[in-house]
Amino acid sequence: MNKSGLVYQNGAFISPQEAKVSIFDRGFLYGDSIYEVTLTYKGKPFLVEEHLDRLWHSADGIGLSIQMKREELTRIIHEGARKLGLERQYIRIIITRGIGDLGLDPALGEEQTTLILFKELPALDTALYEKGVTLFTSEVLRNPKKSMDPSVKSGNYLNNVLAIKQAREAGAYDAVMLNAKGYVTESTSANIWMVLGESIITPPLEAGLLGGITRQKVMELGKAQGFDIKEQNFTVDTLKSANEVFITSSTREVLPVTQVDNQVIGLGVPGPKTKELHKHYKTFILNLN
Amino acid sequence: MNKSGLVYQNGAFISPQEAKVSIFDRGFLYGDSIYEVTLTYKGKPFLVEEHLDRLWHSADGIGLSIQMKREELTRIIHEGARKLGLERQYIRIIITRGIGDLGLDPALGEEQTTLILFKELPALDTALYEKGVTLFTSEVLRNPKKSMDPSVKSGNYLNNVLAIKQAREAGAYDAVMLNAKGYVTESTSANIWMVLGESIITPPLEAGLLGGITRQKVMELGKAQGFDIKEQNFTVDTLKSANEVFITSSTREVLPVTQVDNQVIGLGVPGPKTKELHKHYKTFILNLN
Repeated sequence: MNKSGLVYQNGAFISPQEAKVSIFDRGFLYGDSIYEVTLTYKGKPFLVEEHLDRLWHSADGIGLSIQMKREELTRIIHEGARKLGLERQYIRIIITRGIGDLGLDPALGEEQTTLILFKELPALDTALYEKGVTLFTSEVLRNPKKSMDPSVKSGNYLNNVLAIKQAREAGAYDAVMLNAKGYVTESTSANIWMVLGESIITPPLEAGLLGGITRQKVMELGKAQGFDIKEQNFTVDTLKSANEVFITSSTREVLPVTQVDNQVIGLGVPGPKTKELHKHYKTFILNLN
Repeated sequence: MNKSGLVYQNGAFISPQEAKVSIFDRGFLYGDSIYEVTLTYKGKPFLVEEHLDRLWHSADGIGLSIQMKREELTRIIHEGARKLGLERQYIRIIITRGIGDLGLDPALGEEQTTLILFKELPALDTALYEKGVTLFTSEVLRNPKKSMDPSVKSGNYLNNVLAIKQAREAGAYDAVMLNAKGYVTESTSANIWMVLGESIITPPLEAGLLGGITRQKVMELGKAQGFDIKEQNFTVDTLKSANEVFITSSTREVLPVTQVDNQVIGLGVPGPKTKELHKHYKTFILNLN
């Protein structure tokens, strides 16, 4: 596995097989780390500024002051993508609080571990986009903001791992995660949207979810096209009554959902507004490159 | 650091410096792991059965089926402690869902990573026991059971890392973590107790906390001594009004708390019941060895 890849680790480019961390790394012991994921189109890293903004937001969220200069990180992201040289790459940036004596206090972390993984990203699975995917409402509630803010992308992803485990065991592609009030937050790694009547609705950040970069772009592009786009809380029952449902993420773009639990959505095929938003998003990508 | 140590990793004993995991290990990427900590007294691993019971409880909590046989794990714990040969050792057992293709679905994990770290554990800091420590009420709420059950010892410890960060920055030794109802749960790595009138009270497991092994032993020993020991919810205001406060954990045993936030507890010195319970706990340890 991971043969077509490259890893930047603390100053050098190495193969993914060589990329290891000490068991004393706080990222391994406590998940005391932050990360970002982006991709390349035609070999060029996508929306790097937006992803680095969010990386710094995540760092603030756990009180970590990133030691590497932003310009340096930007340079390495572009250099690594050029080195690997593939059209379509997955890029994961990980920063941990580093190695230190055992103990929860983050002040024990010494030099931060900085890792950037570049690997081949398979093309979008067209069958998924033609057929749509199924979501399953997990019993695992999304972490509340006052415990572990879901707007922070950290090394603590067991909450989502447990939710997708339930979803996959139920035969679904991904999970719908609710908050303690019973409102829909997000899937385990994507934002959730529905088309209800003439409105296109996604939960507000206050529901406790990741401020998706694709979510933001789709919002902007949709509004520019005259769609009635709203951020609004809704329950999974409302989601099931929607005309269309879709999810958004950097690597999945705009992915139609045609079933939630046992409820077929709309006509059971990807909806027209979903397809139109995906088309506009693809145009946006093309225009950037 | 970690010179006086030894690590068992997937079949071999190596030095702590050599002990590394792939960056594709799910323990590193997502905190998709469980762990236990015990110690040795006179070189003998302490309450191994109880700790392995809890390791299996944690495994159940994240739907992980431990690949290593319990007898084998027990044998290696004793073998490692003998090999290191120190009287007082810290022992940390970590099991991760192993290496796999990137993705949250735990089914992607292949062979589990099994690590056991043995290292020198300094003697109890007598000054702390003579003076008592300070706790600080953190704004970070303990993870709720429906999101990430605190009775599971997992690789997701950022919740506690953030709480102790606040406490240490406020000059305290550890944090008091509350649940969403405002009740005291536990500190970041110990159970919390108070003496209120004639009763000795600790929050119930339902408050969302780790079922401490020392907590359980202190409960049993205290009841055997005729103390009125209760599991009951209480707020931090009640905690501050207590006659005595203490915390319990495997490595700290029974540690007096003499201040909570700005409130001095009782006379500001370790209380008599705290000292008596610690004495009984020490006798229990001696009798085991």
